[in-house]
Formats: sequence, structure tokens, C-alpha cells
Amino acid sequence: MLQIWAFDGIPEIVAGDDLVAVIASAAGGSLADGDILVVTSKIVSKAEGRFVAATDREDAITAETVRVVATRVSTSGHATRIVENRLGIIAAAAGVDASNTPEGTVLLLPRDPDASARALAAGLRTATGLELGVIISDTLGRAWREGQTDTAIGAAGIRVFEDLRGGTDAEGRPLVVTMPCVADELAAAADLVKGKTGQTPVAVVRGRSDLVGSLDLPGARSIVRARENDMFHTGAAESYADGYARGRADQAAADANGGGAEH
Amino acid sequence: MLQIWAFDGIPEIVAGDDLVAVIASAAGGSLADGDILVVTSKIVSKAEGRFVAATDREDAITAETVRVVATRVSTSGHATRIVENRLGIIAAAAGVDASNTPEGTVLLLPRDPDASARALAAGLRTATGLELGVIISDTLGRAWREGQTDTAIGAAGIRVFEDLRGGTDAEGRPLVVTMPCVADELAAAADLVKGKTGQTPVAVVRGRSDLVGSLDLPGARSIVRARENDMFHTGAAESYADGYARGRADQAAADANGGGAEH
Repeated sequence: MLQIWAFDGIPEIVAGDDLVAVIASAAGGSLADGDILVVTSKIVSKAEGRFVAATDREDAITAETVRVVATRVSTSGHATRIVENRLGIIAAAAGVDASNTPEGTVLLLPRDPDASARALAAGLRTATGLELGVIISDTLGRAWREGQTDTAIGAAGIRVFEDLRGGTDAEGRPLVVTMPCVADELAAAADLVKGKTGQTPVAVVRGRSDLVGSLDLPGARSIVRARENDMFHTGAAESYADGYARGRADQAAADANGGGAEH
Repeated sequence: MLQIWAFDGIPEIVAGDDLVAVIASAAGGSLADGDILVVTSKIVSKAEGRFVAATDREDAITAETVRVVATRVSTSGHATRIVENRLGIIAAAAGVDASNTPEGTVLLLPRDPDASARALAAGLRTATGLELGVIISDTLGRAWREGQTDTAIGAAGIRVFEDLRGGTDAEGRPLVVTMPCVADELAAAADLVKGKTGQTPVAVVRGRSDLVGSLDLPGARSIVRARENDMFHTGAAESYADGYARGRADQAAADANGGGAEH
């Protein structure tokens, strides 16, 4: 049995707040060994003071961007930029967030979500005496599917993958390719109890203590697929355009050198 | 509070089994109004007799494929085909499943997972007298992120999106782009209580009865992004190659017509 609930009583977070103290206070005595806390990245960013002026939103997105992955301009003229940000995460607007932020501001993602998760997990373990796991979640769109799901952008004290690759199925055959991303599944599950209005940014998942372990386990950065292994590292239209330009240039060079390959 | 648990006592499913009877029997009197059942697609396929001989696996993948989205051959020579299948779902091997199937067979996805979900939901509502939702889940890889998560490939009696687009955040500003795919989040949450060995293919989620409603609500097909709206409808290498070929052809034609555009 898995139980998931959100904490009431998390106040509005401002820059400099001690999230360990805030969460420990909201938890009261309700936590147990092996519980996993799923913390919305927004409050981590707020505690870290990651606000920038809303008028600088486009500049902020540019600053957070390592690489533009795809761009689409809608019929209304609104441009959507899907980019790889400095965390390696591919997200619309680089993860820069304009909802539930003080008027006139937007919010950047935490500086280093895995480090933030480690600090939270270490602090909460000390404060409670319990072995807890921490996930920092963000709401992300996906290729191929409409809508968004919450995913893990930071993690500590928890295995982010349930690695079954060495296991066997019920027929005794090896499970060769199965590596469930339990950190993303936990983030998604927690979103089901969090209000989108931002009032309940911390949820607890109880019942998978088998996933909780050392603070030195790999973080959520290990979920990000390396670009060279990613068959969808660049948008289809952008890749086509790159190929087209190179094809024209190569053919022009070939033609200039004596009539071209196709003649 | 969300509670999620898997049913014990689901027997090995064979072609022709009545899943309504099997699930109602495993549930006993444990269900309540508003519960959501998350059923692994594998047992739906088995009940529908969707077995093919393992020696025909590559042919089966081809038959299920509408369009090859991306192909990669590993250094060991193993080819991964990411394809759009007849359900519009983009998946490795078209969703053809070779684990937890009888020796010498592989398993196709259900013929029409939304129809299967509707039949299950209608039958279970009649059998129990309760308003239940049904999701049929499958394990899918993703662009950009390692590992797999369970997602909804069929749904009935449940809202698959929690549409917040008309809502406001805590500051009263409109939540313009947020449309959480709760069906995928429910499928992911349910996977956290299902063993990957295939012994517990049905989970119950209790605590989101607000999502449960008419059997006529849109199914999981509505989660699939239309190809023309999908910026990642084709792999980057494949799109580049298409663009390259067209660029060479266009330049060759231009050069043949008097020296070309670039001269």
C-alpha cells in the first residue's frame, strides 16, 4: 500500500527561508523511516531567491539556455522556445516560471536541484532522526504526448531508477530493457495530491522505503539523457533545416567541381 | 490522502478470459465509489488473445507500425526502431512485448485500448454498483530522459487531463498553459505498487474520485499529440537526412538551370 498526502501549513516561501525548518515544522511528528518527500521546485527557487524581474523574462530564458532545441511560432505570433537549459533539462521557456510568483517577477529553477535535494535530505534526516528521501519536482511537457506531468529534477537519498535489468520475468527470461524511472513516477504521483494553485508544495510518499538509501546515490541529473544518446535532441523542423542547408552547400560544391554528383 | 494498492490473486490470464469477472473477484468487497483501476495492458492483450509467434516478432512490429520515427543501430549491431504504431503511440518496437509472455510468443497491444477500458469500466460498474474509472497502462520510454514510466494508453470513465487553463494561480493570474495529464500520472503512480514480474497487473488508486465521471469522456487517444503539432515527430538524424537529400536535389536542379542560386 502506497500512501501519498500533502502537508498543510507550508507558508508562502521567501528568499532566505530555511526549508528544512519549514518542512520539519509542517510535518510535525507525521513522518516515518523510509518516507519520501516530494518538494515542488518553486519553493526551493523562492528560498534561494531566484527571482528576476518579469520584464527581463526573455533575457532570463536566454541566460538559462544552453541550446535551443525547437522553436514554433503560433498563428497568433506567440513563440514557444523548447530549450536545453544549464541543467541539461529540455523544457519550454527553459523552466523559467511565471505563475505563483510575486507580481512583476518570474522565477528561475534552483541553482543545483540535486544539491538542494541533498541539503534538504541531510537537514531533514538530522532534524527528524529518520532515513528520508527527497525529490525536487518540476512540471514538464513531453514529446509526443499532450499535457504535462511532474518529473524529478533533483533527488537525494533515493534510487532514481528501479534497475530490473538483471532480473527475470515470471517465465524466467531476462528483463533486458526495463529500467523504470521511479523518481519521475514518484514526482507524478505526488502531483496528484498537490494543488496547482501552489498552496501545497510538499507531499509525502509512504510505502517505498526500499528506494531510500544513501545520500551519495546518483541524483536526478542521471535521468537526463546525454545529447549523443538522444534520438530527439533537436526538433524535426530544425534538423531538417540544418540538413537542407548542408545538402545545398555540398551539392553546390560538387557542381562547381565539374558538374556535380547527380549529373 | 491518496491510497494505491495492487490486487493479489489475479491469475495468469489466457485468451478469452473475462477480465471483468477476474478483477471483480480479486477486488472482493474492497472497492469504493470513485476508485480508479489501473490495469496493465499486458493482461488486456492476453485476454484478447493478441499473441503471435516470437519468430514473427519483427514482422509483428512492422505490421503494428504506421511510420518509423527513428532508428538506431548500436555498436553491437542491435537495431532499435522507435515507431508510431496504429494507436498513434510512439514506442520502441511498436509496443510489441516479449516479456511475461508464454515461451515462443510475443504480445501485441490491445486492439483498441480505449474501447477495452470502456468495456472494463462498464462491466465493473455493473458488477459492483460503483462509479469506477479505468486506465489501461503501458510502459513507455521518453525523449530526453533515461528509463521508462508507465503511461495511460486506454482510459474510460475518467478525465485524462486536469484542465486548469481557465483557473488562476494564488496571485489571481491565469494559469494559461497548465494541463496536467493526470491519466499518465495515475498510471505512473500505480506502477510504484506493481511488481515488474507481472504478478500484480491491477492497482487501485483511491482519493481522486473528482476525476471519475461519464464513460463518454475522451479516452487516452486524446493524449496522443497530433503529428502536425509535434515538434519531435521524427528523429533528429532522420529529419536531417531528409533535409539533406532535399537540399542536394534542389541545388542540383538550380545549378542545372543556369548556375544555381548560390553562384
